[in-house]
Amino acid sequence: MNSIKIFCPASVANLSCGFDILGLCLESIGDEMIITKIEEKKIIIKINSEYDLTENPQKNAAGISVIKMLEFLNFNECGFRIQIDKKIKPGSGIGSSAASSAGSVFGVNKLLGNPLTKKQLIQFALEGEKICSDTAHADNISPLIYGGITIVRDNKTLDIIRINTSNSLFISIIHPQIEIKTKDSRKLIKRKVDFSEAIQQSANLAGLITGLFHDDYDLIKRSCNDLLIEPYRSVLIPEFDKLKRIAYSNNSIGFGISGSGPSMFSLTKNFEDAICIEKEIQKHYERKRILVKYYISKINNEGVKVII
Amino acid sequence: MNSIKIFCPASVANLSCGFDILGLCLESIGDEMIITKIEEKKIIIKINSEYDLTENPQKNAAGISVIKMLEFLNFNECGFRIQIDKKIKPGSGIGSSAASSAGSVFGVNKLLGNPLTKKQLIQFALEGEKICSDTAHADNISPLIYGGITIVRDNKTLDIIRINTSNSLFISIIHPQIEIKTKDSRKLIKRKVDFSEAIQQSANLAGLITGLFHDDYDLIKRSCNDLLIEPYRSVLIPEFDKLKRIAYSNNSIGFGISGSGPSMFSLTKNFEDAICIEKEIQKHYERKRILVKYYISKINNEGVKVII
Repeated sequence: MNSIKIFCPASVANLSCGFDILGLCLESIGDEMIITKIEEKKIIIKINSEYDLTENPQKNAAGISVIKMLEFLNFNECGFRIQIDKKIKPGSGIGSSAASSAGSVFGVNKLLGNPLTKKQLIQFALEGEKICSDTAHADNISPLIYGGITIVRDNKTLDIIRINTSNSLFISIIHPQIEIKTKDSRKLIKRKVDFSEAIQQSANLAGLITGLFHDDYDLIKRSCNDLLIEPYRSVLIPEFDKLKRIAYSNNSIGFGISGSGPSMFSLTKNFEDAICIEKEIQKHYERKRILVKYYISKINNEGVKVII
Repeated sequence: MNSIKIFCPASVANLSCGFDILGLCLESIGDEMIITKIEEKKIIIKINSEYDLTENPQKNAAGISVIKMLEFLNFNECGFRIQIDKKIKPGSGIGSSAASSAGSVFGVNKLLGNPLTKKQLIQFALEGEKICSDTAHADNISPLIYGGITIVRDNKTLDIIRINTSNSLFISIIHPQIEIKTKDSRKLIKRKVDFSEAIQQSANLAGLITGLFHDDYDLIKRSCNDLLIEPYRSVLIPEFDKLKRIAYSNNSIGFGISGSGPSMFSLTKNFEDAICIEKEIQKHYERKRILVKYYISKINNEGVKVII
């Protein structure tokens, strides 16, 4: 096999009360990537995109991840041409860089006959995250590599668990067309928090995870409450509180910031509710003259995958 | 039915990283209680115990819980005699007051034909907790009323969930014969915590709950790590760090303070490991001339129950 085409999905990190812990893989939004073995022993990045992204492999998430991976494998038999059809807008909060880095290491690993474990793929994909944000966090990469919903129990040791649930939730992504840098967004987080708030946040996360295991939608809804981050980060997102009210008054069972924003997510039990929320949010943003993109997806239990 | 005999089990609150959230009901340790309808319209408490406990119903956990419950029900057809065979030592950290208050409301509710829901039983049992400690927290009462392992997602609204797992874990209780008051123990908790520690604590709780659902003992072990409370509270417990090392080097898959101590818990996959840890801990405490009681139990999925 000399060439592979893969789908690199978008993802939702944090999921309200699961800051830096939870990640969810999306199904209907993602990049496509064609990776081809080339004789020249180098990495060539080609990007097809409306966004301004570097093709310098040392500075590109897909490039640096593969470079570090090949160094580790001591592999120098050939090079790779990585052609990215970048559909996920960088800085949108749905894991654009994670799609590039997880996609490239996954694809090259396939072409090499799968020498690396999933944990190692995450380790090298993190190199891509590192150059795109201040911290190298695995919350977006993990659900791409494991599929479904994942927990980063420990980012240092990459203790990552896919939670074995089979929820039929629908996830809406509401993406107002503004940009927030993860770096800027992280600055808004307080360094010290009240003990009681920390415990309440933990209790909500315990409720959310149990709700996912029990398929208890009411519990998911009661638990989707982020006390520690949302109150500070949401000020960067236009009309956040209003949109949240719109979503909940139209049967959303969970609403919050996707990653570091500006995208937001809304969970619903069915497609119809998601459509209804979309209409109301479109209407509201139109009145406020804010452009928005809206996507509806199911949970992607497979993660990054080969399409040809 | 004019009389009922019930078993009021001991419980482990907190379970390491689940401070104020998790609770687990024990099987082999508990009080017995005989509740009898009496003509005189009052509550009479009789305690058979080696411990010094008040029989004043207004000041006794079992008494005040039932008084508040009967007030709510506007019930004055008869009174109740509550005879408690108190085996769980007060201040031991395994829910002595919770056994009294959950037991009495459960028993009286049965005698009255179950007019109250489980949530209401917890609400009135909390009256007993209130007079025994500064805060009225449901983490010990909940697993007695629901059985198994429970999550207090919100103590104010009593949003309590029993987690539907069927683990065959063994729980050892190590009870050094010293007393720590919950009130004193709470004073040691910091009011502000580092954001990163709060997130790590949450991640550990996410791991622990997922480990329970997946029956993943390694994950349970990696997750049983309390960063926020144990480092401060454990100083009140003689030889805590040493005992923890003994437990883990003898196949414990989770060790921590039970409630506010001084009891500690250790989780093991089987009875033999629990016995082995018991022997080593007994030996160590003997050398240090500290008296200790050791109990081994399974998870009690039933909670408080009628025995006659």
